[in-house]
Amino acid sequence: MGRRNLDPEDIVRYEEGGPAVVLLDQRRLPDEEVELECRSVAEVVDAIRDLAIRGAPAIGLAAAYALALAAELGADLEEAAAQLAASRPTAVNLAWALEQMRDEPTPAHARALHEDEVERCRAMAGHAAELFHDGTRALTHCNAGGLATGGYGSAVGAFRTAWERGLLERVWVDETRPLLQGSRLTAWELENAGIPHAVIADSAAASLMAAGEVDCVVTGADRIAANGDTANKIGTYSLAVLAAHHDIPFYIVAPTSTVDLATASGSGIPIEERSAAEITTRFAARNPSFDVTPAELIGAIVTEHGVHRAPYAQSLSALV
Amino acid sequence: MGRRNLDPEDIVRYEEGGPAVVLLDQRRLPDEEVELECRSVAEVVDAIRDLAIRGAPAIGLAAAYALALAAELGADLEEAAAQLAASRPTAVNLAWALEQMRDEPTPAHARALHEDEVERCRAMAGHAAELFHDGTRALTHCNAGGLATGGYGSAVGAFRTAWERGLLERVWVDETRPLLQGSRLTAWELENAGIPHAVIADSAAASLMAAGEVDCVVTGADRIAANGDTANKIGTYSLAVLAAHHDIPFYIVAPTSTVDLATASGSGIPIEERSAAEITTRFAARNPSFDVTPAELIGAIVTEHGVHRAPYAQSLSALV
Repeated sequence: MGRRNLDPEDIVRYEEGGPAVVLLDQRRLPDEEVELECRSVAEVVDAIRDLAIRGAPAIGLAAAYALALAAELGADLEEAAAQLAASRPTAVNLAWALEQMRDEPTPAHARALHEDEVERCRAMAGHAAELFHDGTRALTHCNAGGLATGGYGSAVGAFRTAWERGLLERVWVDETRPLLQGSRLTAWELENAGIPHAVIADSAAASLMAAGEVDCVVTGADRIAANGDTANKIGTYSLAVLAAHHDIPFYIVAPTSTVDLATASGSGIPIEERSAAEITTRFAARNPSFDVTPAELIGAIVTEHGVHRAPYAQSLSALV
Repeated sequence: MGRRNLDPEDIVRYEEGGPAVVLLDQRRLPDEEVELECRSVAEVVDAIRDLAIRGAPAIGLAAAYALALAAELGADLEEAAAQLAASRPTAVNLAWALEQMRDEPTPAHARALHEDEVERCRAMAGHAAELFHDGTRALTHCNAGGLATGGYGSAVGAFRTAWERGLLERVWVDETRPLLQGSRLTAWELENAGIPHAVIADSAAASLMAAGEVDCVVTGADRIAANGDTANKIGTYSLAVLAAHHDIPFYIVAPTSTVDLATASGSGIPIEERSAAEITTRFAARNPSFDVTPAELIGAIVTEHGVHRAPYAQSLSALV
């Protein structure tokens, strides 16, 4: 590829000829831009589980295309949907996308969902940018970028729009251990977009806050419970506590497809425990992949419909 | 080597025959146990700057042996001391050890300081263990172990003694980005000592605290100002804020050689900014190597003289 800005279909798309679901292998970024062709539902499930594609909205889109592939191959759609839904437990968008596809499992329908998702990102970004002021220095965690959403991005989308409006001075990018989605993916997207940024060790965020170098924290979400409790990449909760301690606003930017009104609070969100081998050590390790930020630490949740504030039980239920 | 517990002289020692300062190259642990022979002060300075030996008390000892080497080689002692003192800026033990050696820069004197340091660690550990109760699950950051102190350890020394007394259930070990002193060095020491432990991503500490799986946080220190503000590995301040939010006690274990009454507060402690190349990214990065934890977040500072509480201005000045 080698162009500076990805098109949505570079991230994940359906190839009629194959047929196949083709996706950019995010495990190999930023060193290589390599596509992965999945010719069966099982191959898409593996790609999602092994993080070739990740980010709640993006894996929802991959699952949508995979269901269209299952239909074209004459596979059992119930079984395909069950395998895809089980590929990763925390993000709710997987289930959401599969539900959307149920009545019309076609490539055209998956593409329409994809276009909608990118539109939602642009709308979210417009709303989120209103939380920025002249010279804002934002801090983010993991990758809530175009790669995570099928294009443009949620938190990174907010940075793109704020940058265009002249409101953003720079972005601090948590490297995001253990898999470094920040230093590999978010930094790559920001460099491609020409937005000033610097990668930091995750544990350096607190001292930057104490030094007055952070004006807001902005992340995406994997699942938002009905009361506003939000599951996201491990370390997000830590940032929310640190931001509250330093009187810095903490914002979530995520599409309504991430809101799960059927889950009352964060305690009902399953937290994926991934392989200890992802932690770089030859000794014993624990590797929870997500954490839950309680609603009271969240200054605003931004969706494509606007900027929502506490009490979230009301502002979120009005949305869906 | 291959034995399970290091002797103090395995970490750093003086070889008369060389003459040389010989140290265990901590950059290559845990994969290889390789010694580095330094035959000049410049070689010791390089070893300290490049982290072949690290940890505030341990680099103080390396500098003490190096000054003895300078004397034996007939080098200019003032110049040697100045080079050693400038090798790393944050730890105060370097200056302390050089001051101790000034009047008698001999290998025997350096060895005596080394033995004293290990004795201090054992005394500290005994005091610190009184802060543990039956079944304590402690969390630590970086390596405040035998490797960092010339033997036994400060925070890890506390774990050894608490374990012997049956008071410790397990240790959570922050991997400690960017250089992974936790997952490489502390986990290695704890495994060698047979103490149950698990390495976690630094950003996972908060969610373990929220889940009630952490009873206390214990770290070492690179420099403690007169008011109790404490500089230590980047990420320590973050843990202290998170511990306070979760009502978990946060303890510093460090010898009095780490206390710097000449520095009034944390704002006077120089914070080393290391190469951005240590952050695993091909993009822009920032790499502050230490942070400062304000005294009000510290539940106790433990030295070889006992457990000291706030107000630290009084309890620390009574010590030195």
